[in-house]
Amino acid sequence: MSEQKPVIAIIGGTGALGTGLARRWLQAGYKVIIGSRTAEKAATAVDDLRDILQQRGVSSPSVEAMDNSEAASKGEVVVLTVPFSHHSSTLEPLKHSLQGKILVDVTVPLVPPKVARVQLPEQGSAGQIAQTLLGDEVHVVSAFQNVPAIHLQEGDDLDCDALVCGNSKEARAKVIELANAVGMRGLHAGPINNAAAVEAMTSVLIFINKQYKSHAGVRVTGVEA
Amino acid sequence: MSEQKPVIAIIGGTGALGTGLARRWLQAGYKVIIGSRTAEKAATAVDDLRDILQQRGVSSPSVEAMDNSEAASKGEVVVLTVPFSHHSSTLEPLKHSLQGKILVDVTVPLVPPKVARVQLPEQGSAGQIAQTLLGDEVHVVSAFQNVPAIHLQEGDDLDCDALVCGNSKEARAKVIELANAVGMRGLHAGPINNAAAVEAMTSVLIFINKQYKSHAGVRVTGVEA
Repeated sequence: MSEQKPVIAIIGGTGALGTGLARRWLQAGYKVIIGSRTAEKAATAVDDLRDILQQRGVSSPSVEAMDNSEAASKGEVVVLTVPFSHHSSTLEPLKHSLQGKILVDVTVPLVPPKVARVQLPEQGSAGQIAQTLLGDEVHVVSAFQNVPAIHLQEGDDLDCDALVCGNSKEARAKVIELANAVGMRGLHAGPINNAAAVEAMTSVLIFINKQYKSHAGVRVTGVEA
Repeated sequence: MSEQKPVIAIIGGTGALGTGLARRWLQAGYKVIIGSRTAEKAATAVDDLRDILQQRGVSSPSVEAMDNSEAASKGEVVVLTVPFSHHSSTLEPLKHSLQGKILVDVTVPLVPPKVARVQLPEQGSAGQIAQTLLGDEVHVVSAFQNVPAIHLQEGDDLDCDALVCGNSKEARAKVIELANAVGMRGLHAGPINNAAAVEAMTSVLIFINKQYKSHAGVRVTGVEA
């Protein structure tokens, strides 16, 4: 993977987080597919991305629009950025396309309206739900749940880490590479069970953002990665 | 509380975390009671504390040894630092003494031997278990689960934040003052439900410490508190 950059498909990739990640991966020279429920919706997001990247001097980014199903099939690494309420229903029909691949799950199990309150699912975390649903031949890796989307959209350096959880160390290492490409330090943070900590932290950050009028992120201190 | 420092009782206060916190509060001029299952065991820890503090130029620290029951009764703010396996059994007999007080719960629900794996209790978190067990007249505030004890024992500045969770904002504010006295930045991190995020993060930090040979802590970035 160091030698050749994988094609990244972002399922539900038209939102602030999905397009923020896409922008950074495109700037780093990755090929990106934006997936959405319809290819038309994805195409609008891709047009916007092209405009923004051109302003930043990236004149011919390698970005395509597809529906989620085609995106999951064509992507070599697949990233999921959908609301928790659509998490399982989005993954279920993609199960076949994802076999043997890495699924980067960015989902946070927020339960509106109390999104600043930790309310983890019975199964532990969205990451664990995905791993159970997809089976062991899909390497589910959770990451990027704590990065403020606004920071992905702007600026260069991100003052926050990506805590990368998943049962395969090799798959985690590949996602750490993707985190570095985004401008974050990626850290091995343990098995997929540990996604619970990172997903729950998002509600803490939402609370902090309300309390302190901030766009908070998380750094692990005392570590040289 | 800004005017007058409360007497702090540390239940199960003879371990690395309890004595580390005690040392820092004593250095900051607080009165501290070290509680243990027997007053004799607490007395040994207090002798050690006096020696260490004398070496640091604190010649007559206000520190006393008591059994847990007396400590909980005499303390104005009560801090709990026991293993999760003793959490409920330690709290149950102290319920009466704690009414109307702040209980600072430092407990992390680790499940040996897999302490680097998040395994939250059914009830959500140790903090929620304590709040339910003690009732609404006790202000349970969770904090200090992520600070490496070794850093409390050494040095001055701690490069980590205290994420302070509890249902009473006023009680949280008092614990934030105690965090500041320890040399940490304390942040309002939400209701007691949010303790789940902070407790779970401890397992992530244990994993990171194994992986990177570190003594990791957590900082929230992008916030001016």
